[in-house]
Amino acid sequence: MAIMRVAKKQTNGRGIDFTTDVVPEPAPDEVLIRVNVAGICGTDLHIYKWDSWAENRILPPLIIGHEFIGTICDIGSGVKHLHVGQRVSAEGHITCGHCRYCRNGQGHICREVEIIGIDRDGCFADYVCVPVHNVWAVHPDISDFYGALFDPIGNAMHTVMSQQICMKNVLITGAGSIGLFSIPIAKENGAEKVIVIEPNPFKREIALKVGADHVLDSGDADVRDKILEYTDGLGPDVLLEMSGNTQALKLGLELLSNGGSASLLGIPPREVSINLAEHVIFKGLTIRGITGRRMFETWYQCESFLLKNGKVFEPIITHVLDFEDVEKGFLEMEASRAIKVLLKVSE
Amino acid sequence: MAIMRVAKKQTNGRGIDFTTDVVPEPAPDEVLIRVNVAGICGTDLHIYKWDSWAENRILPPLIIGHEFIGTICDIGSGVKHLHVGQRVSAEGHITCGHCRYCRNGQGHICREVEIIGIDRDGCFADYVCVPVHNVWAVHPDISDFYGALFDPIGNAMHTVMSQQICMKNVLITGAGSIGLFSIPIAKENGAEKVIVIEPNPFKREIALKVGADHVLDSGDADVRDKILEYTDGLGPDVLLEMSGNTQALKLGLELLSNGGSASLLGIPPREVSINLAEHVIFKGLTIRGITGRRMFETWYQCESFLLKNGKVFEPIITHVLDFEDVEKGFLEMEASRAIKVLLKVSE
Amino acid sequence: MAIMRVAKKQTNGRGIDFTTDVVPEPAPDEVLIRVNVAGICGTDLHIYKWDSWAENRILPPLIIGHEFIGTICDIGSGVKHLHVGQRVSAEGHITCGHCRYCRNGQGHICREVEIIGIDRDGCFADYVCVPVHNVWAVHPDISDFYGALFDPIGNAMHTVMSQQICMKNVLITGAGSIGLFSIPIAKENGAEKVIVIEPNPFKREIALKVGADHVLDSGDADVRDKILEYTDGLGPDVLLEMSGNTQALKLGLELLSNGGSASLLGIPPREVSINLAEHVIFKGLTIRGITGRRMFETWYQCESFLLKNGKVFEPIITHVLDFEDVEKGFLEMEASRAIKVLLKVSE
Amino acid sequence: MAIMRVAKKQTNGRGIDFTTDVVPEPAPDEVLIRVNVAGICGTDLHIYKWDSWAENRILPPLIIGHEFIGTICDIGSGVKHLHVGQRVSAEGHITCGHCRYCRNGQGHICREVEIIGIDRDGCFADYVCVPVHNVWAVHPDISDFYGALFDPIGNAMHTVMSQQICMKNVLITGAGSIGLFSIPIAKENGAEKVIVIEPNPFKREIALKVGADHVLDSGDADVRDKILEYTDGLGPDVLLEMSGNTQALKLGLELLSNGGSASLLGIPPREVSINLAEHVIFKGLTIRGITGRRMFETWYQCESFLLKNGKVFEPIITHVLDFEDVEKGFLEMEASRAIKVLLKVSE
Repeated sequence: MAIMRVAKKQTNGRGIDFTTDVVPEPAPDEVLIRVNVAGICGTDLHIYKWDSWAENRILPPLIIGHEFIGTICDIGSGVKHLHVGQRVSAEGHITCGHCRYCRNGQGHICREVEIIGIDRDGCFADYVCVPVHNVWAVHPDISDFYGALFDPIGNAMHTVMSQQICMKNVLITGAGSIGLFSIPIAKENGAEKVIVIEPNPFKREIALKVGADHVLDSGDADVRDKILEYTDGLGPDVLLEMSGNTQALKLGLELLSNGGSASLLGIPPREVSINLAEHVIFKGLTIRGITGRRMFETWYQCESFLLKNGKVFEPIITHVLDFEDVEKGFLEMEASRAIKVLLKVSE
Repeated sequence: MAIMRVAKKQTNGRGIDFTTDVVPEPAPDEVLIRVNVAGICGTDLHIYKWDSWAENRILPPLIIGHEFIGTICDIGSGVKHLHVGQRVSAEGHITCGHCRYCRNGQGHICREVEIIGIDRDGCFADYVCVPVHNVWAVHPDISDFYGALFDPIGNAMHTVMSQQICMKNVLITGAGSIGLFSIPIAKENGAEKVIVIEPNPFKREIALKVGADHVLDSGDADVRDKILEYTDGLGPDVLLEMSGNTQALKLGLELLSNGGSASLLGIPPREVSINLAEHVIFKGLTIRGITGRRMFETWYQCESFLLKNGKVFEPIITHVLDFEDVEKGFLEMEASRAIKVLLKVSE
Repeated sequence: MAIMRVAKKQTNGRGIDFTTDVVPEPAPDEVLIRVNVAGICGTDLHIYKWDSWAENRILPPLIIGHEFIGTICDIGSGVKHLHVGQRVSAEGHITCGHCRYCRNGQGHICREVEIIGIDRDGCFADYVCVPVHNVWAVHPDISDFYGALFDPIGNAMHTVMSQQICMKNVLITGAGSIGLFSIPIAKENGAEKVIVIEPNPFKREIALKVGADHVLDSGDADVRDKILEYTDGLGPDVLLEMSGNTQALKLGLELLSNGGSASLLGIPPREVSINLAEHVIFKGLTIRGITGRRMFETWYQCESFLLKNGKVFEPIITHVLDFEDVEKGFLEMEASRAIKVLLKVSE
Repeated sequence: MAIMRVAKKQTNGRGIDFTTDVVPEPAPDEVLIRVNVAGICGTDLHIYKWDSWAENRILPPLIIGHEFIGTICDIGSGVKHLHVGQRVSAEGHITCGHCRYCRNGQGHICREVEIIGIDRDGCFADYVCVPVHNVWAVHPDISDFYGALFDPIGNAMHTVMSQQICMKNVLITGAGSIGLFSIPIAKENGAEKVIVIEPNPFKREIALKVGADHVLDSGDADVRDKILEYTDGLGPDVLLEMSGNTQALKLGLELLSNGGSASLLGIPPREVSINLAEHVIFKGLTIRGITGRRMFETWYQCESFLLKNGKVFEPIITHVLDFEDVEKGFLEMEASRAIKVLLKVSE
């Protein structure tokens, strides 16, 4: 019974334990993966802080974490097309596979989804078990640091690709890690201007580094005027809502051009009051709710993008820590001094 | 200086005057139309009642009305492709023609739109002037009664056609005239089931007559359960929101299947508070704001539909009145005893 | 070692043997199905006649047949979500499941596809083994006769649904079984007119029975004029090419309206010479190649359609034979006296 | 009666006359434009050479030319939204404005189109008359050289934008001026790799200069192998056929990935024999015929692109000549020593 290091939520309440656990065994349709690098997601921070969402959703004990890259070191008895030694990441949403959504290529909206690091043990561990269907072989030309980030880059990719962005003015509200990943994805895919609204100056600075054309402080009085100035008085064509902030979302919808289109990824913590008549109906707007990643279209898009433009994401990875310093990673994120924190799990 | 009969809002306040006015002369790019039949729209009722919307929008004196069919009886000096004697209706939204929206085939969201019977004199008159670009020659096989209704049928058509409805379960909230027109349009174009929610029993009865599969009273306690029962527990695929009612809209979004899609045509009188996280984002929903009619794609679709299925709309035309009884029409509508009221203007 | 009846191609050359074979055992991810009803497809006739296509593609000995309905009577060791006693049909295309196409919801164009009754033993047998992924549970309200026909109805459905057909004029070239299935699918989903071109009078008659608006003999001199007459001089909006006949395909492209769209399902036996400049480029045409069925979107669409409109297909099932009369079925089809022949395999 | 310089086809046969003519007067809905810069198009070369296409299409005497930028110097009596002094280009396709195509935003496939420089006098002249509807005000930040090229850049834009190209491998067959314009449009809008096939080494060199990832000589034996190598063995996702060459078109369709999509702009001089079964149907391909430019969506896209990336087209403008050297321009193009030739018409 082999032992491994894990970052585990052992009981309800704030914090995370860096401790040990038994190495799991893969079920017949699973593989066991030696984790090389893992990323800390905003969701992990919710769990660390044990906010009300976490309290309602998480059942300790649980090894958390769902962004990672590693190497297959064992395979279940029924595994056919994967083998020990492959360098892989994984889609964290384990879908039922037999509902109407799953059978129609819409697994990302399966109602029976189980999420790695949320509903079952995750990747903040030396080893993690993942069903075959979820495994993604990482291209050899993609480094471990980016290979570990298919999941959040995939959220950004799914959101950007849900829109026609070629030669369109794009407004991004919120420059957290996914908002930031969205900037170069939009720019490299033909967006005319990418305008970012973000209250945190540290994040605004990174937004500029990764290619935003204009970065605005949501607290400034002239945000509306500036955005109209940048868009010939018509407003942006596309809104990518990445903050979950009610005011940002409302401002984005208000500013969108007639005929414009919004994709909402950020999760508002409560109901949002919207002026549907003026901001949606008379303007002929389209609003799309975005969740997860298209399986596996989004993954192929991320692979293609990383092979061509990967380095552009570099300023977003602000911290690379040893696995045992995982708690420091959470604290840096909590203090808004970090965007994406990577953990070096194995050598 | 010829004189004509008109239904005119002469001053601020409730009511309408059946009076006389001077027959207008067409500008160089306009035609003068002898009105045969006109329809009373819900918007006209707002103006009649002089509610807060009307008070903010309408500047009397104004001849109202925008749904009609008639015969061209004079043409402006620059008119080329139309001639006296043609039987025509008209798109009521007069667009600027040279903005980005107009030049890209999106005139229905032009910001400089001027509406017949709202911003300029309308069709509750023996004669009305309309710009050439807005005129629609009515097919000889379409009767006057349906030819007068291209405008509201077009609203319904635009809404239904903004969705993929073939073999989809469709929920319609609100069975006013446009909601009712939508029912057979959806059914004849392949909707699996059309389910209608409507509080008014008179309207529910007509909904059944024009082909709804299930009609529910929004006041009933088991509306949610019934709709899930009709849709195999998944919820409807498509929502057509025709009521502008906040509760109906929220219920519709809540019930929609994952991956579902809503088109909003009804105008909510105030902001609507929406659970974006649960009802839109995690479900991967799409919401479309719908306004006016596509020029002139919607008109061709209406023509095609009326030629094939026109009679199915018959139960929606509840009243045909002489022009001088126009006020009676308003009162019947206000009392919810009428759906679509037609006025026989000329012989 | 149980024995079952089979219709088997034992050696190269014309014909089929009604003989016996060993009942197969399901692999861990397969189910064994007791066949109730099977349908004879045009492809089966090619194999029966042993034409040049069959000679190049088929490796006897082979149990043929891929259209069927039956009952699960045994399941492999790894099967989770299916059980003995379920009434099922199956998608005949067994895809690799791990290529880019399969992982992106495009299994119907997987390059490694293996087809039941072509590349492995099929359903003209008392029992057939099918991989779990391919099994389709048939709705209890769909009878055996239609439940056995999901495969060819699915070809028609996939072709029709590859187009926007609501209120469009549709030309179908070729009224074999799939062309015939397409007629009511197009009509019930809102096609304005469905016009069919077919040289065989027996098939033309059935085309009318299942709802075609106009049926033309391809040999008539005035085919072009008639079609333009039916479509206001513009030509059809949509072409569904179901014949594989070179002349029909060329005529269809020539007649399509500017901006029109063609879906090609029929397989031309050789290269087709097309006037791309006049018939495709200057007209702004779109041409789609259609193969197989979308997994499993097409199957859900067929289920929905059969539940609502199933009986409309009745005239297409011209023969229902006992299994031992399978050869008679081939001969009737060869003589163009049959469209769809069903075989009652088990009681 | 003012006199102007013109390049005019005076009679049937090879050549062009640099001569004088009367300055035209604008009709009520036209403007008169003083031409600043004009571009020579491949179509103009056909007319110069008087090939069989020209012989069948052109009726001398005719001032040719349709690519230009100039300044409005007079307006017709009915012109409202344009004024003397505006710097403008123009869409060369004058559509009827009242057919089904025109009224549905598809003027580019209007059957009654009249083309400047082909059906009526063109822009190889000091002055040209253009209908108001066709005039395009050129953004002040776009230089005359690029402003004169909205027409051919628009062909390229329309073709590229007819496809989803973000993170897709794109094959362009033919590196004439439109093929070359397509390269940076595809690259800047997110194409993963742009691969170009072109027999002429001069054009191949320019293709590399404007950003092609791989440029292949159509005469090389290993073209197929190379393209499969560049595309992971799957073939390109998108084909942009710009040559009109039969072999290039067939090769492109053959190489496209399953599920791929082709846009055809090049005009094949005769029918093309296509293996529809293997290259289109079984692969689930889509083929689009592309003609002209979307009015005016393509123009807005070109403006946006030129403002952001205009300089990337520089290597394509190989010659800038004085107007009186127009014949030299034709000879350089005929000798394949020129790609895009600009004529400085006025000072």
